[in-house]
Amino acid sequence: MATPTKPSVIYGRPVTTEGVPNVYAGAKVVPWTAPDPGIDNLGINSIDTFAVPGVGEYTVPFDGWVRVVRSEPTSREWSKAEVYTNLIEMKMVGECEELGRITVTLNPDCLSTGQIRTPFDPYAGEGPSAKACRMAVGAIFDMPKLGMKLVNKEPIILTIDDVRQIPPAGAPGKGQIYRMLPLHDSRYLDQQPVAYVTSLRFNMGGYLSPEELAAK
Amino acid sequence: MATPTKPSVIYGRPVTTEGVPNVYAGAKVVPWTAPDPGIDNLGINSIDTFAVPGVGEYTVPFDGWVRVVRSEPTSREWSKAEVYTNLIEMKMVGECEELGRITVTLNPDCLSTGQIRTPFDPYAGEGPSAKACRMAVGAIFDMPKLGMKLVNKEPIILTIDDVRQIPPAGAPGKGQIYRMLPLHDSRYLDQQPVAYVTSLRFNMGGYLSPEELAAK
Repeated sequence: MATPTKPSVIYGRPVTTEGVPNVYAGAKVVPWTAPDPGIDNLGINSIDTFAVPGVGEYTVPFDGWVRVVRSEPTSREWSKAEVYTNLIEMKMVGECEELGRITVTLNPDCLSTGQIRTPFDPYAGEGPSAKACRMAVGAIFDMPKLGMKLVNKEPIILTIDDVRQIPPAGAPGKGQIYRMLPLHDSRYLDQQPVAYVTSLRFNMGGYLSPEELAAK
Repeated sequence: MATPTKPSVIYGRPVTTEGVPNVYAGAKVVPWTAPDPGIDNLGINSIDTFAVPGVGEYTVPFDGWVRVVRSEPTSREWSKAEVYTNLIEMKMVGECEELGRITVTLNPDCLSTGQIRTPFDPYAGEGPSAKACRMAVGAIFDMPKLGMKLVNKEPIILTIDDVRQIPPAGAPGKGQIYRMLPLHDSRYLDQQPVAYVTSLRFNMGGYLSPEELAAK
């Protein structure tokens, strides 16, 4: 068993997992309702674009899962409720010819944190009282073909808009990357970036069963 | 004298200040040229909007200065050059009736880092070979009227586009904030945010003299 690591970088509010039940496939999600705390086991897929200076730009589809712990909502009234989240486990796998197989997991040196709340600037296209979901993520992109593990030292900000249920299973989201997000070689963290994420789009999937989670 | 603090969070590449000369008012900036390393002493102003949940949204103009150390460029050829930067000192002061006087300084627990490089996605409106400048900043917003120091735990990403000279003195820039950037009370960092930055626009000023720097 791996030694538990205490993250040195904490992007937001920690959320306890103690006594919080896992939620799997078959669970019912009620729209416009602030639910009890849970650990959501959800599918996820994404399309990430990586730029490697002087080499090229590569767009890679990923598929996998996340485990997200949700806090007690700050109110049971939907319009007032804020929910805090921590991404406690993630595995996404993608592949392209030039970069080979890429496995994305959480960086244990970071606590990846997020929240769901009413935005200050709702968009016209959103439903009434729709919420905004955001998460700051520290990840490791393992690229064995290149012999490198790449890490982001600035968090990747993942956002989902027009959230009408918690969790926002099935919703599309976006990595809020302005032009480039630097990636560093994990062996040389204090040196200059070796690659960049230039675009990231994702879709939250639905609840998975323990068997589906183990198989992915 | 304050005890030197080693930051626990490092957003990018550290840049040494050792042997690097200060650059003040009167220095000549040559466009399309990758300059020698320097510590740029520059004016800056910004307009920040703060949202305090349940209380209101406040837009505050700030004025002040920054000290930025620039690395040796990775090439003397402009089109290939990358320059790494660290924000080593900052003071910006703003005021509004509801929040009182606000002083923004660097969070010594973070190393605020940045870079200037050729973007992967230049905009049509930009000049040929214009570069992109970005910096990840950890700040403290001291609000004595509220009895609080607010800190961001996700970096504030400041960007300047269409960079035709280094430093990009006189250029407008933007904080890349998607809807909200959480601010935490420095006494209760592990609790939920107490306020948010919802918008940030800034202008880099020109070089200041040592006297102007001391007076601001």
